[in-house]
Amino acid sequence: MDNEYIVSLGRAAKNASAEISRASTAQKNAALDAIARLLVEHSDEITAANKLDLEYAAAKGIPAPMLDRLKLDDKRIAGIADSLHELIKLADPVGSGSRTTRPNGLVIENIRVPLGVVAIIYEARPNVTVDAAALCIKTGNACILRGGSEAINTNRVLTQLMRDALCEVGLPADSVALVNDTSRESATALMKLRGYIDLLVPRGGAGLIRSVVENAEVPVIETGAGNCHVYIDESADLDMAVKVTLNAKLSRPSVCNAAETLLVHKNIAAQFLPAFKSALTHELVIRGCERTRALIDCEAADESDWATEYDDYILAVRVVDSLDEAIAHISRYSTKHSEAIITRSMESADRFRSEIDAAAVYVNASTRFTDGGEFGFGAELGISTQKLHTRGPMGLDALTTNKYLVTGNGQIR
Amino acid sequence: MDNEYIVSLGRAAKNASAEISRASTAQKNAALDAIARLLVEHSDEITAANKLDLEYAAAKGIPAPMLDRLKLDDKRIAGIADSLHELIKLADPVGSGSRTTRPNGLVIENIRVPLGVVAIIYEARPNVTVDAAALCIKTGNACILRGGSEAINTNRVLTQLMRDALCEVGLPADSVALVNDTSRESATALMKLRGYIDLLVPRGGAGLIRSVVENAEVPVIETGAGNCHVYIDESADLDMAVKVTLNAKLSRPSVCNAAETLLVHKNIAAQFLPAFKSALTHELVIRGCERTRALIDCEAADESDWATEYDDYILAVRVVDSLDEAIAHISRYSTKHSEAIITRSMESADRFRSEIDAAAVYVNASTRFTDGGEFGFGAELGISTQKLHTRGPMGLDALTTNKYLVTGNGQIR
Repeated sequence: MDNEYIVSLGRAAKNASAEISRASTAQKNAALDAIARLLVEHSDEITAANKLDLEYAAAKGIPAPMLDRLKLDDKRIAGIADSLHELIKLADPVGSGSRTTRPNGLVIENIRVPLGVVAIIYEARPNVTVDAAALCIKTGNACILRGGSEAINTNRVLTQLMRDALCEVGLPADSVALVNDTSRESATALMKLRGYIDLLVPRGGAGLIRSVVENAEVPVIETGAGNCHVYIDESADLDMAVKVTLNAKLSRPSVCNAAETLLVHKNIAAQFLPAFKSALTHELVIRGCERTRALIDCEAADESDWATEYDDYILAVRVVDSLDEAIAHISRYSTKHSEAIITRSMESADRFRSEIDAAAVYVNASTRFTDGGEFGFGAELGISTQKLHTRGPMGLDALTTNKYLVTGNGQIR
Repeated sequence: MDNEYIVSLGRAAKNASAEISRASTAQKNAALDAIARLLVEHSDEITAANKLDLEYAAAKGIPAPMLDRLKLDDKRIAGIADSLHELIKLADPVGSGSRTTRPNGLVIENIRVPLGVVAIIYEARPNVTVDAAALCIKTGNACILRGGSEAINTNRVLTQLMRDALCEVGLPADSVALVNDTSRESATALMKLRGYIDLLVPRGGAGLIRSVVENAEVPVIETGAGNCHVYIDESADLDMAVKVTLNAKLSRPSVCNAAETLLVHKNIAAQFLPAFKSALTHELVIRGCERTRALIDCEAADESDWATEYDDYILAVRVVDSLDEAIAHISRYSTKHSEAIITRSMESADRFRSEIDAAAVYVNASTRFTDGGEFGFGAELGISTQKLHTRGPMGLDALTTNKYLVTGNGQIR
């Protein structure tokens, strides 16, 4: 890979960011509107490119769920355009802030400003190409998109349309750039592009995250690792416990907020586990501890199951002696994404909320709600599982930083 | 270095953090009060250890300003105790937050919680040992302190007194730990202590920052690099320009918010530069561009001067043709810490505020105000020059993260 190519992308994005950072909300919304229009007008071109990607991917033997995520049709393109119109309605955080006057007369304003250049490394999901770029445009950031190789033809068309839309409203095309090289080297070069990238968001599996931790020299927000738990307390409402567990595991197993391990208090296990198993609405591989296997027919779990994010129709199940044991298990294996307790005990709920260290802690609700849309943010760039900057769904605010503006009349210290 | 030693410190701090994270504000304030009392009660012990450090440092030929920063006497210890009492008065951010109810009835609270374990790598300034630990205690974090080798005897006594104080009020002693090994390897091991450290704050020179960028696998907030500029606009009030520049450069040249380069509009340079030079209250080495040298007697600056943070009685001076040229110069060489314009033009002020990308942008005031105390935060752990999490002085809020608490009655998605 030609490292000069990545540096040139970085330089162009940095230059563009200086301009788009000062764009008005109206101008940024006009860009989003133009993107929505151009996507729909050029849906034939998009779907033709997407067909190429789908054919290559099918020939490579890509699994069906991944092919489905890769696919764009007229309906999905209309859906993307709709979400752009929703994004237009959201408040622009840039320029908001607070103001104080110090005893010496200095006026100190602390305002939200764009980060600058945001790079996103993601999998073969073309909708992310538009979503991520749109969130960056709305917040006055330039972005560099490094999508998966399987979507490269689709991404090229989408990116060109977005660049055309930016030009149409007088904003620099380089505010949105696609890395035209989907090698591992291009991703690593982005991670080291210090001085040009203000934030790198890796979206992907454990391998990508590990590579980022080892290689990144630019600021990173880690997203997406979700080894989420549902704990059924001894006082749980049985029906609610079954309903929430089914939803947390089965409604969309491939996403990061789906449950991976179920913990059940020993005093409710004999009632709950058979009820849960007989309520299953989809085939599910259960890997249970010994006490689980004494109650329901299932595979045997080993230590590695507690640490695994299956992203599949597989659930690890463990019977625990107490809330303490449940909290200790979660503290050991959790990726600090989303954790739920089902309980009627206020004491258990309070302890769980206080002692579980995670982006989102649920009492009597499904872990599946950890999502920018469900939280009312309107959109998200990913779910942060780190503690710096922001935790949980990353909405528009997460794409800004602060800047102190200090105005005086000659004050010295 | 025994890496197991650093891991054991990390493990102990992580365990302590679970407990101190749930301490009440009253209990945390009681710990701060006990620290203040023990420091004063044991000031003989502290100054005896400090005398050892000072002797070693003097024998090593450490420069006088560094010896002064290393020194603790009864008055300085009383000053540290006073600042602890000030910290007690500040509001505890932990537990504050917002609450919304979603249309489906889910209650979503977003509350501030401690980060967990904070590690600080810093120079030989024993006051930082207490300040940093106290900020962490106030926000419910455990901390691991890795101070400079020259202060190790002082730091051992201070840390033991803080641990005694924590025990006295029923909080775990391991909430404050000192790395008893001041080798470069112990710093690198801390940078890689993933899973135990939630935030690493390096305080030090360019070498430390570069090492952190290359080695760190834990989340980092970069602090302290300050290549700060003062720009004298053509419309500046001459007296104010002289007064603010003198203050920004001379009031404390060794700190990060001191000015390093002075930019002067060509139309005011012939008036301003001689006036500035004749107003100097301290010997100052001036390194000027050719146009500067045509107006005042000084050394010749080269390209490297624009990029240098002298932290000394040295000032680089450049005459520029326009505000555009000043902004371009700052954008190229700034470390994005603190930048000032002196002007009577509202248009120049607005452009400078908008186009300069820095933690703090000043109009008609000295860069020296970028400081937690001066901003009204009461205390600071350092000045963040990065954009993620927080920018500018890091007060108590910066030592917390957020956590979503979601409460329902069986909601599924």
